[in-house]
Amino acid sequence: METPHPSPNAHNAGEAPRLSVTAPQGFRAAATAAGIKPSGKSDMALVVNDGPKDAAAAVFTRNRVKASPVKLSQAALADGALRAVLYNSGNANACNGAQGDADARESQALAAAALGVEPSEVAVCSTGLIGELLDMGKVRVGVEKLLPLLGDDEAQGEAAADAILTTDLVRKEAGYRGEGWTVGAMGKGVGMMAPSLATMLVCITTDAAATPQALDAALRKATKVTFDTVDIDGSTSTNDTVIVMANGASGVTPSQDELDRAIHAVCDSLARQMQADAEGVTKRVNITVTGTASDDDALNAARTLGRDSLFKCAMFGSDPNWGRTLAAVGMADAAMDPENIAVYFNGQPVCERSTGTPGARDVDLSGVDIDVRVDLGTGGPGTATVHTTDLSHDYVEINSAYSS
Amino acid sequence: METPHPSPNAHNAGEAPRLSVTAPQGFRAAATAAGIKPSGKSDMALVVNDGPKDAAAAVFTRNRVKASPVKLSQAALADGALRAVLYNSGNANACNGAQGDADARESQALAAAALGVEPSEVAVCSTGLIGELLDMGKVRVGVEKLLPLLGDDEAQGEAAADAILTTDLVRKEAGYRGEGWTVGAMGKGVGMMAPSLATMLVCITTDAAATPQALDAALRKATKVTFDTVDIDGSTSTNDTVIVMANGASGVTPSQDELDRAIHAVCDSLARQMQADAEGVTKRVNITVTGTASDDDALNAARTLGRDSLFKCAMFGSDPNWGRTLAAVGMADAAMDPENIAVYFNGQPVCERSTGTPGARDVDLSGVDIDVRVDLGTGGPGTATVHTTDLSHDYVEINSAYSS
Repeated sequence: METPHPSPNAHNAGEAPRLSVTAPQGFRAAATAAGIKPSGKSDMALVVNDGPKDAAAAVFTRNRVKASPVKLSQAALADGALRAVLYNSGNANACNGAQGDADARESQALAAAALGVEPSEVAVCSTGLIGELLDMGKVRVGVEKLLPLLGDDEAQGEAAADAILTTDLVRKEAGYRGEGWTVGAMGKGVGMMAPSLATMLVCITTDAAATPQALDAALRKATKVTFDTVDIDGSTSTNDTVIVMANGASGVTPSQDELDRAIHAVCDSLARQMQADAEGVTKRVNITVTGTASDDDALNAARTLGRDSLFKCAMFGSDPNWGRTLAAVGMADAAMDPENIAVYFNGQPVCERSTGTPGARDVDLSGVDIDVRVDLGTGGPGTATVHTTDLSHDYVEINSAYSS
Repeated sequence: METPHPSPNAHNAGEAPRLSVTAPQGFRAAATAAGIKPSGKSDMALVVNDGPKDAAAAVFTRNRVKASPVKLSQAALADGALRAVLYNSGNANACNGAQGDADARESQALAAAALGVEPSEVAVCSTGLIGELLDMGKVRVGVEKLLPLLGDDEAQGEAAADAILTTDLVRKEAGYRGEGWTVGAMGKGVGMMAPSLATMLVCITTDAAATPQALDAALRKATKVTFDTVDIDGSTSTNDTVIVMANGASGVTPSQDELDRAIHAVCDSLARQMQADAEGVTKRVNITVTGTASDDDALNAARTLGRDSLFKCAMFGSDPNWGRTLAAVGMADAAMDPENIAVYFNGQPVCERSTGTPGARDVDLSGVDIDVRVDLGTGGPGTATVHTTDLSHDYVEINSAYSS
């Protein structure tokens, strides 16, 4: 069967090149198998910024139930400075109460001591099962093993990108080359994925010089139209964290526009890789809504459609079921003209003035990519795009057996 | 495998008895196979109120995209009077534009002419595929066939209840016996089911005397806590319609309290039958949220959890995954104390103060009924219950192949 999973080495035209987090000057990384994952695969990673600058910014999950490492990293990022990020997969350290908070703090302190920096200069990110205590014996040994493995080779950046994966099938990296400066990035995320002004685990590094404020502006602008528009299953994680670190090692200070473009490029690339690798995915479904008074209305409608189980099952069945499309958007919190809705599948009109076109049921949706456009008929300029997937047997299989 | 599908003749203690729409005095029904369903099963039904009174009330879908029969029946019900309801299954007559509206009007006029009443005294309800024109040749013959079949036997009421089914596996009827008066009811609905102050197709008949205002009050009170709390897949249909007709043939005028209790009893019974027969269901999951400032907050949180695909997959896998429960409610539009959430599965505490209890993962969820209680920890008096199901392979199978 044809699948949308990208080859780890695929590089589409116009897409950000795959560059590891060690591609920019002055960043080192390492990964190890600390035994947190029962599979024995690598499950801890460390990304270190060797300076000279330590500017950083981040966005976090908006879920009210936040994992211990999220709360700790929010505090660490408050001053816009960071020297390192410690990652573990296999355990989210979420909903573990005071012990979870203490374990996150100890992880942070261990990494800081090993690197000779202050704990507040280290962020901690965890991903995996919710509600199991971290085995701190394994974390202590893991941090010890990571230190001598730190290096600035591409292989070490790739190893770090591998170590943060959970049910992901492929490594996710992206990059951007400016004039005299570079951005590298890694990410993970394939389920419990409906970032809400935040996202999954992502680490972006750059040797450009930039203030924390410039980084923050670029990051928020980029995540709004990239990670925030990926909606695999409507579920927002307790651990979403995107961090960007800039050390100025290149000596280049890009303009805000250049910085925005670079950060957008790597976020967009990682978001598309996450969509393509989503749990159980057999189709990539990109939904664009137009014809609304505001972009917010369009986004609400696109999200409502992208979360509709019946629509997603139809996509799995390659079924051009525009009736379910109308039924779904009809419940969106968006002004619309119910008698003047148009739907296009892969560019072909299947519904005009809220009524099916001749031949609508014959549109071929057998390919891996399905493009859905819905015009809500108010004549307004609003538009938004959401990236989702189908709802398949494999999604049910993966998620009915995950924790047991 | 044990399944939650009720036997058509099951009658649980405390549940409304199964009485067909012809159980009350002065109501006749009929059903026929008009050929609208490719299977050849019965697909048209007529329920007639022979008076003396013609009081009626109804609630309809809040979806902005409304089927032609919904718009027509809303107009017919405006004066609180109704003599008959014409049903068809196999075709929703939704999203068919002006032709759909004309076809609904012709169906209404055909039934009215056959019965010798005004078109405005007849409601029309359709259910089935969206976006295909009704075959009016078949509808015309169907109405002709229905007329001589009308009768007040239980068998005719049951035949009508069978004729409105689509992917439902079992007939759904309910009833209530007052002192000297009776309520009968039939319903259908197993997918595209998240009624929003409205519901699926339901017909309630009674020989009690009641004003349209009394019926309307009883119906709205009942649907709010019955059909509106069923949420199978978060999708709200274009065709939801619940109609109640009262003819006063018994000569009894129950108090508003008695009427409320009777209407609630039949709505509650039908809602539970719909949940038990939901598409692909292997588990009935009843979610109660407490500890919120308001009932609305509790309902928002219960709905958010009941619509979360990851939580529903865990239920399919009999997996006591309280972590996903917390992650889901953390995104609800409800005030909560994120550090003080408690979760109970089948009465057993699995999470207290937002942290797992010892043995939480060993709770047995292998049965058909799963009771989930979540306390959001604010100490407030708010509470609400939502009735949902698991997300199973069969749900995906049924809904990826439905229209093709």
